[in-house]
Amino acid sequence: MSQPYNRVFNFSAGPCTLPVEVLEEARDDLMNYKGTGMSVMEMSHRSKAYERIIGEAEQDLRQLLNVPADYKILFLQGGASLQFANIPMAFLGQGKTADYIVTGAWGKKAVESAKIYGTANVIYDAKGENYNHTPDWNLPKFTDGAEYVHFTTNETIQGVQFKDDPNLSSPVVCDMSSDILSRPVDVSKYQVIYAGAQKNMGPAGATVVILRDSMLARANEGLAPMFDYRVHAENGSMYNTPACWSIYVCGLVYKFMLRNGGLAAQKQQCEAKAKVLYDAIDSSGGFFTGHAMEGCRSLMNVTFTLPSEELTNTFVKETEAAGMDGLKGHRSVGGCRASIYNAFPIEGCEALAAAMKDFAARNG
Amino acid sequence: MSQPYNRVFNFSAGPCTLPVEVLEEARDDLMNYKGTGMSVMEMSHRSKAYERIIGEAEQDLRQLLNVPADYKILFLQGGASLQFANIPMAFLGQGKTADYIVTGAWGKKAVESAKIYGTANVIYDAKGENYNHTPDWNLPKFTDGAEYVHFTTNETIQGVQFKDDPNLSSPVVCDMSSDILSRPVDVSKYQVIYAGAQKNMGPAGATVVILRDSMLARANEGLAPMFDYRVHAENGSMYNTPACWSIYVCGLVYKFMLRNGGLAAQKQQCEAKAKVLYDAIDSSGGFFTGHAMEGCRSLMNVTFTLPSEELTNTFVKETEAAGMDGLKGHRSVGGCRASIYNAFPIEGCEALAAAMKDFAARNG
Repeated sequence: MSQPYNRVFNFSAGPCTLPVEVLEEARDDLMNYKGTGMSVMEMSHRSKAYERIIGEAEQDLRQLLNVPADYKILFLQGGASLQFANIPMAFLGQGKTADYIVTGAWGKKAVESAKIYGTANVIYDAKGENYNHTPDWNLPKFTDGAEYVHFTTNETIQGVQFKDDPNLSSPVVCDMSSDILSRPVDVSKYQVIYAGAQKNMGPAGATVVILRDSMLARANEGLAPMFDYRVHAENGSMYNTPACWSIYVCGLVYKFMLRNGGLAAQKQQCEAKAKVLYDAIDSSGGFFTGHAMEGCRSLMNVTFTLPSEELTNTFVKETEAAGMDGLKGHRSVGGCRASIYNAFPIEGCEALAAAMKDFAARNG
Repeated sequence: MSQPYNRVFNFSAGPCTLPVEVLEEARDDLMNYKGTGMSVMEMSHRSKAYERIIGEAEQDLRQLLNVPADYKILFLQGGASLQFANIPMAFLGQGKTADYIVTGAWGKKAVESAKIYGTANVIYDAKGENYNHTPDWNLPKFTDGAEYVHFTTNETIQGVQFKDDPNLSSPVVCDMSSDILSRPVDVSKYQVIYAGAQKNMGPAGATVVILRDSMLARANEGLAPMFDYRVHAENGSMYNTPACWSIYVCGLVYKFMLRNGGLAAQKQQCEAKAKVLYDAIDSSGGFFTGHAMEGCRSLMNVTFTLPSEELTNTFVKETEAAGMDGLKGHRSVGGCRASIYNAFPIEGCEALAAAMKDFAARNG
């Protein structure tokens, strides 16, 4: 193991690997952040120092994702799971309908919460094929006059990913938790983008919500302040104490990405890393089988099965002993899952590919 | 300034000072937590290492607060502000009433959200006296058959604090955000205790909710999973990814407190620290005026005014230059506020008391 600080290759589906440089910076400033005399963990969110931290995080995220001026960027709490409820609470209600495209476990959870607040019309569900693909954008039958259409860009458990931005007449609401900042997107195709921090941005705790002003104006009135996006927007994400530390580390990640080529460079890296693993699957002579259909294969979560559960368990044990952590797949798909989010190093993919080749040779 | 790491005395109302030992531990384990090969920020919440972290945090908090076995301890997100809505969402509804005792800004906010979900009956409001006291427990007129009675143990803006546990026939729901763990409480007098982490426990992001099983059983059905306390309880606070880092640091704080005498010792320290400041107010010959009435004075937030706004501003500037940060009071009370939560060192109180004496002598 030649990783810095004796770190392992962490294939966890999230929370997950962060850039070493970012962690070092957080560590070095932990006792006294840049001469303020306190840790960021101890800092009033109303202080000038913290206002600068959250302000720069917002600006940097805006720059990275190229977020147009008529969108608000909010740093909230509760993860995507809270947004599963907050979105329909704000935009549905008696007699209102939203379309949901379900390509995996997260989309399904979004529907479960949406049904409580209005009509959630599942216009596409890939369940029949055990969620091994994403539909062509022309396939789902969209509902006329739907308040919004909701989809999940990347499904972590199944490892399927939409490859392009939608171009729809309904307002698009998108859970981008597991692939945000892994590639450039055209934000103007979306009315709402939301994402938990803990895959590609930072530590769990913060949730980014990006809303177009025209959508914000349509949000239901009379909600509790904590569920009212307007309240959060008017207060610059400071209606109540935000997840300060998580936002701070997200901000460090944004700066790290900006000084390393932004999303175009990130996309290339993600493609190169995923290619190493998908090539290992495809060249294994059928020993390893990819779960996702070609064309929908996730660049974030590479899911594959082995010939038997016994071999799967042995493989997971062997790789773990070799410093590769978290490869056991979710029970609904079986096999293995290699989550290789933005900060995961390509060396880890190469190590895993080599281990796969070796294991197949010995057991094939 | 002889503080370690050139740290200032941080009088912030929250987030606020954490124990130096705890910060050092977090720093030392930041790149590779105890040989796991990763930071706690990067760790799957489903990993054995993290399950141990959150499990120990729960156990240690249970021990510290002496939480009986028929209470669940949950680590949620969204702060007390989310609980302001979640509590009535879970326990109120059409035709249901809860009593609210309002002794300051936070109680008022709790009422604002509660009204959306049912009848929030304000049975005591200290507004007429600008929230300078807490009522005797016999004073409010409780509603027969109320689902619960809600109060705020300590109001941070006004600096008033209830000094003893209630003994009421209605189920008691309590926002203990700003004085939890500052003294022993009899948990059996409460059905629900909730508290944001960022005063006495750790960094903002985590929210502790302690619920009695009998209350949990009465929660409304049909809520979105994120608002269903049963779902969180059944999943050991892991229904979705929790605020892992914040919970981890809370856990370090709990261990720190356990090895330093627990809540009995903490109470003594809090009393000693507050005495230094209240004595400085009371011995100033009327130069400084305490906001809270005697008997209700907060041990967490010491609020006081000076003869004029000009003197207040000068005093805040002078103390800031001397390494005392965050003393400016909230506009609704004016003057100064010295927040001296659990981890705030007594040396800071002594430094402030000396500065007060000196300032009064020069300007009195």
